[in-house]
Amino acid sequence: MDKIKVGLFGFGKTGKVVAQEIMQDKQVDFAWVVRKTKTSNHKYASRLLGFEFDSTPFFSADQISEDFFKNHPVDFIIDFSIASSYKEYAAAPKLGIKIISAISKLDVVAIEVLKEYSKHSAVLYSPNITLGINFLLVASQVLQSIAPKADIEIIEEHFRDKKGISGTALKIANILGLENTKHVNSVRVGGIVGKHEIIFGLPNQTIRLVHESINRAAFGQGALFAAKWLYDKPTGFYSMEGIISDMFKQNIPVY
Amino acid sequence: MDKIKVGLFGFGKTGKVVAQEIMQDKQVDFAWVVRKTKTSNHKYASRLLGFEFDSTPFFSADQISEDFFKNHPVDFIIDFSIASSYKEYAAAPKLGIKIISAISKLDVVAIEVLKEYSKHSAVLYSPNITLGINFLLVASQVLQSIAPKADIEIIEEHFRDKKGISGTALKIANILGLENTKHVNSVRVGGIVGKHEIIFGLPNQTIRLVHESINRAAFGQGALFAAKWLYDKPTGFYSMEGIISDMFKQNIPVY
Amino acid sequence: MDKIKVGLFGFGKTGKVVAQEIMQDKQVDFAWVVRKTKTSNHKYASRLLGFEFDSTPFFSADQISEDFFKNHPVDFIIDFSIASSYKEYAAAPKLGIKIISAISKLDVVAIEVLKEYSKHSAVLYSPNITLGINFLLVASQVLQSIAPKADIEIIEEHFRDKKGISGTALKIANILGLENTKHVNSVRVGGIVGKHEIIFGLPNQTIRLVHESINRAAFGQGALFAAKWLYDKPTGFYSMEGIISDMFKQNIPVY
Amino acid sequence: MDKIKVGLFGFGKTGKVVAQEIMQDKQVDFAWVVRKTKTSNHKYASRLLGFEFDSTPFFSADQISEDFFKNHPVDFIIDFSIASSYKEYAAAPKLGIKIISAISKLDVVAIEVLKEYSKHSAVLYSPNITLGINFLLVASQVLQSIAPKADIEIIEEHFRDKKGISGTALKIANILGLENTKHVNSVRVGGIVGKHEIIFGLPNQTIRLVHESINRAAFGQGALFAAKWLYDKPTGFYSMEGIISDMFKQNIPVY
Repeated sequence: MDKIKVGLFGFGKTGKVVAQEIMQDKQVDFAWVVRKTKTSNHKYASRLLGFEFDSTPFFSADQISEDFFKNHPVDFIIDFSIASSYKEYAAAPKLGIKIISAISKLDVVAIEVLKEYSKHSAVLYSPNITLGINFLLVASQVLQSIAPKADIEIIEEHFRDKKGISGTALKIANILGLENTKHVNSVRVGGIVGKHEIIFGLPNQTIRLVHESINRAAFGQGALFAAKWLYDKPTGFYSMEGIISDMFKQNIPVY
Repeated sequence: MDKIKVGLFGFGKTGKVVAQEIMQDKQVDFAWVVRKTKTSNHKYASRLLGFEFDSTPFFSADQISEDFFKNHPVDFIIDFSIASSYKEYAAAPKLGIKIISAISKLDVVAIEVLKEYSKHSAVLYSPNITLGINFLLVASQVLQSIAPKADIEIIEEHFRDKKGISGTALKIANILGLENTKHVNSVRVGGIVGKHEIIFGLPNQTIRLVHESINRAAFGQGALFAAKWLYDKPTGFYSMEGIISDMFKQNIPVY
Repeated sequence: MDKIKVGLFGFGKTGKVVAQEIMQDKQVDFAWVVRKTKTSNHKYASRLLGFEFDSTPFFSADQISEDFFKNHPVDFIIDFSIASSYKEYAAAPKLGIKIISAISKLDVVAIEVLKEYSKHSAVLYSPNITLGINFLLVASQVLQSIAPKADIEIIEEHFRDKKGISGTALKIANILGLENTKHVNSVRVGGIVGKHEIIFGLPNQTIRLVHESINRAAFGQGALFAAKWLYDKPTGFYSMEGIISDMFKQNIPVY
Repeated sequence: MDKIKVGLFGFGKTGKVVAQEIMQDKQVDFAWVVRKTKTSNHKYASRLLGFEFDSTPFFSADQISEDFFKNHPVDFIIDFSIASSYKEYAAAPKLGIKIISAISKLDVVAIEVLKEYSKHSAVLYSPNITLGINFLLVASQVLQSIAPKADIEIIEEHFRDKKGISGTALKIANILGLENTKHVNSVRVGGIVGKHEIIFGLPNQTIRLVHESINRAAFGQGALFAAKWLYDKPTGFYSMEGIISDMFKQNIPVY
């Protein structure tokens, strides 16, 4: 496999950590970063990430035209920016550039546009792109099918200031057919980064599937994982759960 | 589906609890129990289990001959007795009776004999027949394939007097290719019934698959689950992991 | 210390398990059991508990008069029966008999009467008399004082059919000044015997105090623990938290 | 209380995070930082920590003489540097400056010298100065006294590259009289920041005291907590456990 050429949208709190992960991946050539901030003391993302070399130049949103993607070709655009950025790379899929969007709350319109893009190139959308959470999503559906009488509850723990039920917990509840007002327990204390626990209770045994986030770099790892998997895939609309679901199929042990 | 006709070998600590589960399953007709004790004040297992009716007579090992299985036909023999009992039902598979052996430590010779039996009828052998543990076995193998760089450790907790590493933990370690002297942590305290935790550590996230036993009835539930699954299956040698593995295949969500 | 002479009120689901614990304690002489059921095939609790000897006779409620306690003197009455039984042993405290009531839901009137009793003898009332839960109650109050800025949440897990929030969780919430509708998370799944977790969240660390019930015998152990502690104590109204709180004082390490 | 004037030794991985905490505490006046690095583009710690103002100048070790502490007086020296730094502030205690050393592995000689210092001023030494771990240390000793028959095991989990058993786990084992080779279970996987769990097993219940580190700022919080507590204390040798133990005494609830 050649090096995968990647461009990144977004250099906020999560974007920065994701950039760090992309920068360190030896299978990846990190071409550029598009960010909101126009002027900057730093021309290169590498410098802002603490490296002692010049690489991966910054561009601002207003520098992006259709030509941009021709002049700065990449295999993938990874998007950790904001909910409206998808409009800025409308020209990319037609050039065969694949898209990985990890925006946490895209509206229905945006998702429809991404599906349009996916007629020209492979497009993946996943609001929680970590490998672990998507493993939980698929494994819990399988377990629910195997043990349909099990009672299921979700506990999600996050730092005190996180508002509302976590989007990930909502998604797990939804996919398992659980009313989230009844079966999702939200704990908000101190500085917990993020913990999701799915409890399956049977009369004589309890099974727990637990995911603990240590830091946001997990999102970068998830995006890179997705990029490698999508590298040789045809046009179409993908999700991280779909990838993990497919890997389940490939990897179920044979007896 | 007709009622499944079941005979049970073993009425010790676990056997009794398993009998209770079989007795309460409305899809099952519980034909008889073979146990070591010869004389007994009670002729019926139902009475010893606290029910106010006569059903499911006891037989002792020396009452079992080839004719026994002809005169007291069943669909399944479920074996929770001792490591040598398999000899006593040698005639059964040839009559088309299926076998479910849940003996915790069968030697190689015994397993070979069970494989012989499986030429005539469906035979399942699983030392830990609970649904939960077998779900963990399969799910952890899948996760290991998806995240091959994850570090894996096992913690197993049991009551203070349990000797040695749990057989289940050894099996998990073995199937994941982990040296059990290095990667299995055994905790022996108080009266813990049984807890197994498989920890997958990635740089930025941790995934835990946890199974907690509440009581031995889980074994009975596992055996009944296996019986229903095997009911219309052809001759052959089966395991609980194999069944769960197969159910994974059938139940992976499609995206 | 002489053997402690104990009489038990209550022989229901919990009472039976408690009786088993009392019977096995070598420091205790188990004098009698008062139970609702009038007629019985068994005259002795020992037989119903599976022992091969005659000891600890049964009495029914209508056999209890003031004389009963004179004719069948004990050091302690342990009460695991029903909310109104306290009336039946009104005569006992005046004879110097100490009372341990572990009824889960006593009303205000009943508690007032117990306080009256405590003018004549030592009387302890604790709706959850296990050592572990009371350790959590005291330790969590200490931690709250040490770390007043910590956010606190309670998770309690029980079998699916348990109605309402657990009384123990309500008590913990109340004693820590937490609104139970906001800070108690109730999980009801399968057959979980009982788990209480108090989570203290600080910006950079999380502390969890967890109690897991394995079976009801813990109540019997708690009552016996209380009896031994109260054996040489003066008249007065006691609680298990008070005892544990006192033991904290005696056992804080000195540096 | 006046603002507490603090000087910091150490600006490595942990030192930097600690400095951040000190800088943000409004009850503290952060006077200076002594660090190994001689030359620096930055004269002020504030700048290196990302603040937009000049405060808290750096000094290098070779600028420290007896006069230094006279010319730059503080109430406290907080030491998160290296095992030999204690020599550099030998003159401070005689000027009434209190010392808080949080070096993780001081040898016996160093500790003896700190004890010498403590004849002139209050000196605290604690290799793990977080509030949570010290709460566990004291609470577990109390629980061991209350439930002497409980079996105790320790599980500690850390990132894969951490060598040897954690010092904190060793200390817990030591203080509870447990052989660490038998009763400490070390799990090394992925990027776990730090988790310590002390399990108390009784026949019918299990109690778990759990501490999870989110990040190193907990050390800074611990040091500041200690400084505030020590502010008006007399000369003497203190430890964080001793402080927490004292706070236990002050805060045990009265019934």
